Amino acid sequence: MFKLVRTTTLFILVFFLIPKKQFGQKLQRDQIKELAHQYTITSFPMLKELLSIPNDAFFKEYIEKNVHWCEKAFGNRGFSTQRLKTTTVPLLLAERKHKNAKKTVLIYLQVDGQPVDSTKWFQQSPYIPTLKKLNNSGDWVPISWESVKDYHDDWRVFARSASDAKGPVSMFLTALDATSENEITPNYNIKVIMDFEEELGSPQLPDAVIRNKDLLSADMLIIFDGPRHITNRPTLTFGARGIATLQLTTYGPVVPQHSGHFGNYAPNPALRLSRLLASMKDEEGRVTIDGFYEGIQIDETTEKILRAVPDNEEQIMERLQIAETDKVGTYYQEAIQYPSLNIRGMQSGWVYEKVRTIVPDRAVAELDVRLVLESDPERLIRLIKDHIKSQGYVVIDREPTKEERLEHPKIATLTHEISYQSFRTDFDSEVGLWLTRALENAFGETPIRIRMSGGSIPISPFVNTLGIPAVTVPTVNRDNNQHSPNENLRLGNYREGIQTMIAILNERL
Amino acid sequence: MFKLVRTTTLFILVFFLIPKKQFGQKLQRDQIKELAHQYTITSFPMLKELLSIPNDAFFKEYIEKNVHWCEKAFGNRGFSTQRLKTTTVPLLLAERKHKNAKKTVLIYLQVDGQPVDSTKWFQQSPYIPTLKKLNNSGDWVPISWESVKDYHDDWRVFARSASDAKGPVSMFLTALDATSENEITPNYNIKVIMDFEEELGSPQLPDAVIRNKDLLSADMLIIFDGPRHITNRPTLTFGARGIATLQLTTYGPVVPQHSGHFGNYAPNPALRLSRLLASMKDEEGRVTIDGFYEGIQIDETTEKILRAVPDNEEQIMERLQIAETDKVGTYYQEAIQYPSLNIRGMQSGWVYEKVRTIVPDRAVAELDVRLVLESDPERLIRLIKDHIKSQGYVVIDREPTKEERLEHPKIATLTHEISYQSFRTDFDSEVGLWLTRALENAFGETPIRIRMSGGSIPISPFVNTLGIPAVTVPTVNRDNNQHSPNENLRLGNYREGIQTMIAILNERL
Repeated sequence: MFKLVRTTTLFILVFFLIPKKQFGQKLQRDQIKELAHQYTITSFPMLKELLSIPNDAFFKEYIEKNVHWCEKAFGNRGFSTQRLKTTTVPLLLAERKHKNAKKTVLIYLQVDGQPVDSTKWFQQSPYIPTLKKLNNSGDWVPISWESVKDYHDDWRVFARSASDAKGPVSMFLTALDATSENEITPNYNIKVIMDFEEELGSPQLPDAVIRNKDLLSADMLIIFDGPRHITNRPTLTFGARGIATLQLTTYGPVVPQHSGHFGNYAPNPALRLSRLLASMKDEEGRVTIDGFYEGIQIDETTEKILRAVPDNEEQIMERLQIAETDKVGTYYQEAIQYPSLNIRGMQSGWVYEKVRTIVPDRAVAELDVRLVLESDPERLIRLIKDHIKSQGYVVIDREPTKEERLEHPKIATLTHEISYQSFRTDFDSEVGLWLTRALENAFGETPIRIRMSGGSIPISPFVNTLGIPAVTVPTVNRDNNQHSPNENLRLGNYREGIQTMIAILNERL
Repeated sequence: MFKLVRTTTLFILVFFLIPKKQFGQKLQRDQIKELAHQYTITSFPMLKELLSIPNDAFFKEYIEKNVHWCEKAFGNRGFSTQRLKTTTVPLLLAERKHKNAKKTVLIYLQVDGQPVDSTKWFQQSPYIPTLKKLNNSGDWVPISWESVKDYHDDWRVFARSASDAKGPVSMFLTALDATSENEITPNYNIKVIMDFEEELGSPQLPDAVIRNKDLLSADMLIIFDGPRHITNRPTLTFGARGIATLQLTTYGPVVPQHSGHFGNYAPNPALRLSRLLASMKDEEGRVTIDGFYEGIQIDETTEKILRAVPDNEEQIMERLQIAETDKVGTYYQEAIQYPSLNIRGMQSGWVYEKVRTIVPDRAVAELDVRLVLESDPERLIRLIKDHIKSQGYVVIDREPTKEERLEHPKIATLTHEISYQSFRTDFDSEVGLWLTRALENAFGETPIRIRMSGGSIPISPFVNTLGIPAVTVPTVNRDNNQHSPNENLRLGNYREGIQTMIAILNERL
């Protein structure tokens, strides 16, 4: 790792150590490392500029500025670009062909960011990227951008999307510069698909991929997104869980009633909801609905793959402050191989200072189901629905009418939305082996390979429509406050991200 | 019932039908009825004035105005008054002795009102009493106070506390006027205790009763509060459930976690809470904690009393829009004889438009336990606590520390507050028989006698400290929007309330 290296010294070093004429051939590990460092510093103005464009996808006028910026950035690097229209904002496709290339790699980049609550950021604006270092008291204090010539790996850039995921966009553009300016040409063609509505759940994406199937055709997909394994070592992720959400409502009296007059008489919807939820999972968090985990088998090979991830579960549990975990798996990586049924929110009546002594009129639970490749989301939702019916409920997908309320003792409203499916790629697939080689060449060690990430990314539409395998190349620090105030990107991760991407552009496919 | 009776006509009628000299003796039914009507009209300015004084007990300066008004009102009617000091606002005691009186009746009045959300009232202010009538489209439209000379029983006064419980205060003062101006003197002494913090749960009352035991000594207590039976027929209520409240919190990870990364791994507090609540009650709302209903027996006599209440349960269920009731009792009046365990509020994470895809950090349930005479509240709370322990929880009364979280897999925080106990008086007690006679004389029918009201009023401190029986004399219409916006009092109920109270002042004890 670089620590307070002086670029002037380094530049001279690089200049002498890596003679120009060696470029054009495959780069060696040291060369990649030196190049990454050199281009990290020169790319800071670009990173700053990109992070300065507001990118909350609720505001279409800002998104247009981001699309325009990307068109220019890729256009300047020899890419042809075209907008793939949707009913809202477009997706952007950039394409660059290379001499003698036989294969095409599709790269997914996310450009929009989570909404911001500026009042909770410890800086002027989430869209004014601020460089900070940790002082002796453990506080992040701003330092001048002029200092970047003398940067430290542990300094961080604070801005919305610094990690999720404009940081990786800037890394990739920088890696393109570093390779082309040093006469390294990938032996494959590149297509880049840019998503400007990822944080909205990419609602237009599945349809756009279907409509533009030919334009997007490729041999494999790589995704530059997400944080590395918690050890911050080079990581490849071979899959991600999909996601579906459900909303479950139970009913009591039509309007809240005085609990004195009607406690013991009017059925309590919060009790009904509790009993329903309790009937779905056991004391250790395992779903008890028959068939929910059907089809999932962790064989010996898989077990070996999962066990190879260097998780420190004691540390995870200490961080979460929990004394025991759910028992869906016996360890973290195993737990992620199964679909989940999570209560993400629950409400009935009022609590705390707003409490009122009533029998509430309704109780609602918001559920999310993380999907794995073996899960048919429609089937899982049917299982949940059938289970609720088996508890004596009439299940409908809207508010009950007065007539229905008076006819059926137990009514539940269940609605659902399937966002997207899971995807999973074999470690020994062509794309898996190629990326593993690239990272080995960059860092001199086999990357941590994760079979399945717990969170969800909108990749299955590509995998399923285009019929290609996908692998995620995460680069950013895990403690980046993604989706929260004070999102940041560690400069060491930015540098190693560029190093990773140079190595990928450099690796023969 | 009076409907559009002209007071001028009536006044002439009363003047001729009830010769002055008859007064001073016990009034007959017709006389009571005529007097009540006459004084209803003349009392409207007083009712308006009283309802115009804001009385949310959170604002002490308003309460002082109410105390002062009451001092004057009772002082003008021959009562001596004194303030019973507490650490917040005082209670007010008014006392009037009568010649040859052997017994003393203590009367409880509530003067403060629920907080208001003025924006939800369909009038200028909840403290500007507005007279309204229902038009043909079913809307309440304001009419001039000048119209009261020609009033209709179904017109209503809309204002905070119109029913709960300044309406009854005004009825009682009017009944005092009607009797004394017509030379009717009760054959008992009267003490009136006025509560200005009832809607706050009367936190100062139990202690004040103990400290002023001698001052408050009496032979019986009557409470002018609450709505009549839903049939709106004359009603006496012989008891009320007490109330205790609990707050139960379960824990997941110390801060909310991404449900993708930690679904199936970090224990979900909403599931834990659901399982706990579900374990406390069965599918039909019966508490399954052993001993919760201990000591309660509905014998034949009681059964007869309960069955005599003319409840139309089909109507209740239609109003609540429920197809079945909880099965704690087999009918409404029976259900109220048992303590309840009600979930009045429940929350974890976020729902609806605020939903976030997380494993929440905590889940909280707000519970209320309505108490009956057989319930020892400390014992019931201990049973609940022991039950939670029996489910594998360490139960504490505060937030767990990090060390505790890491040591104990399951922690629940349980706090409670016992507001006050239940009270219940026998139908054939002296006060019960006396009030029954008074109402029979006023209305020519035996009142509906309710063994126990489901809701709670702070009467047990009087009953237990002073060792006297208590009976509630409810007068207001049940659909009065008590505790809600657009609280109102039906003029027919106001008139019959005055009639009731004249009859009580007139009835020999």
